Amino acid sequence: MTPNPDTDEARTSPEQRLLDTVLASFDRTPDERLRTVLTTLVRHLHAVVRETRLTEAEWQHAIAFLTRTGQASDDRRQEFILLSDVLGVSMQTVVVNDDATGGATEATVLGPFFVADAPAVQLGGDIAAGAPGEPCWVEGRITGTDGRPLAGARVEVWEADDDGFYDVQYADGRTAARARLETDTDGHYRFWALTPTPYPIPADGPVGDLLAATGRTPMRAPHLHFRVGHPEARTLTTHAFVAGDGLAVDSVFGLRDSLVVDFARAPRDAPTPDGRIVDSPTWTRARFDIVLTSNVT
Amino acid sequence: MTPNPDTDEARTSPEQRLLDTVLASFDRTPDERLRTVLTTLVRHLHAVVRETRLTEAEWQHAIAFLTRTGQASDDRRQEFILLSDVLGVSMQTVVVNDDATGGATEATVLGPFFVADAPAVQLGGDIAAGAPGEPCWVEGRITGTDGRPLAGARVEVWEADDDGFYDVQYADGRTAARARLETDTDGHYRFWALTPTPYPIPADGPVGDLLAATGRTPMRAPHLHFRVGHPEARTLTTHAFVAGDGLAVDSVFGLRDSLVVDFARAPRDAPTPDGRIVDSPTWTRARFDIVLTSNVT
Repeated sequence: MTPNPDTDEARTSPEQRLLDTVLASFDRTPDERLRTVLTTLVRHLHAVVRETRLTEAEWQHAIAFLTRTGQASDDRRQEFILLSDVLGVSMQTVVVNDDATGGATEATVLGPFFVADAPAVQLGGDIAAGAPGEPCWVEGRITGTDGRPLAGARVEVWEADDDGFYDVQYADGRTAARARLETDTDGHYRFWALTPTPYPIPADGPVGDLLAATGRTPMRAPHLHFRVGHPEARTLTTHAFVAGDGLAVDSVFGLRDSLVVDFARAPRDAPTPDGRIVDSPTWTRARFDIVLTSNVT
Repeated sequence: MTPNPDTDEARTSPEQRLLDTVLASFDRTPDERLRTVLTTLVRHLHAVVRETRLTEAEWQHAIAFLTRTGQASDDRRQEFILLSDVLGVSMQTVVVNDDATGGATEATVLGPFFVADAPAVQLGGDIAAGAPGEPCWVEGRITGTDGRPLAGARVEVWEADDDGFYDVQYADGRTAARARLETDTDGHYRFWALTPTPYPIPADGPVGDLLAATGRTPMRAPHLHFRVGHPEARTLTTHAFVAGDGLAVDSVFGLRDSLVVDFARAPRDAPTPDGRIVDSPTWTRARFDIVLTSNVT
């Protein structure tokens, strides 16, 4: 029999009565969606406390952890995204939104290193801007799920350098290995970048402490970030992952088989697509075509 | 039939497979308790995302909210405790730990305004230290659940002033309405303080925004904070609530009937317990006896 809180209060546990009181406090929320999300969150947070019989010392520890996570975050570091990433919450958000994507390229996590309004680079230009690493030619075509090429699509790309650092981790604040491009009239894009390499997520903060305490690796599978938008399609956040040895583990659970791409290596003297003379023993090239979900018309 | 992730992978949803992968990443956690708490948290956070079909915009909003909560926290302000309080998570942690308290005084939330190592005040002294408000004489006796008085118990008390502010909210950093006392050989304590009044929790930060967006009041039922410890008993965090009109709502869900105490009001010229001449039209007095859970011997 379902307990009736009005008549069976004495038989309802104090834990359940508290939860009911907290849930009822949201009854006057004007935005129905906000009420749904918050009450769902409250139910599950209370369940964590009840199922684990959380101690007050553990609660204090959790508060201190969140506080340190806040203190580790600033204009150039986003420790809360990192926390969401290593708990798989970011990727679960991506997965539940896959419902809508049909035959489009799969999405993956945004990660903590996205920066809005990266510098514009011409098609065929070099986004590395001096960041160290093996040169890499990347090209592809952006189409909609309706098959049409998307001209003038906004392509944002960013990646770590060969030392495993994004530009926002540099002490001097310069921008590198990050750019914004626009597809040509046939939906094509092309640029020089760096061959992605495996790297650890920042492990010197609370999230690094969490990984260490749980015996987990901070390493990410090598990848190049993309965010692609067009007025006629749904914006996509994804990666091109490098086929090879680095795919065994991904600390943020972002790896998807459909996103693994061959980055073919060539010697220095092999002719490059645009005639560039490469100042490196080798270079690579990859093709990554992207299909965006066309807007319903 | 329970799905077997080894053989039925194709039939398992991508959401469930992701959750299983994330849970398995904690398999090598050396501390079994940490593994239990983290995997329980992960299961419920993923359930929030799945049940609400959280959008990526909502995820971004949540990250921004947590970041602002971190930025609002510093040495003198603890916005994460406030968040835990208004979601009832702090009080649920108190309730699940009640199991162990037997006939002891009930506990309630610590709140965000506790400060370790408050100044020592002699028995009968005034903890107000100049904070504005109606004078209030508070006395009581600390005993164990085994009935023995607890001599030399450490009694920490703190409260808001008549304007609704704790000292840590003052711009000048002074200490007021906060002290540490020690019970006498018979377990008694006594001090002058301020009659607690209803006040709003700090509403100028992200938690205040949350309350406003959900149509909730920031008001707390009037109360005086206690934390009481003794080597022979379990430390207790509780409040004495003021009987009367202010008990209709408590934004942090900390109110418990057993903690409501009569604060009897007297005119200025009524004789005070210690002969103090009161410089105020009225004053109050309250008795709050406290029973701590005796250590198992």
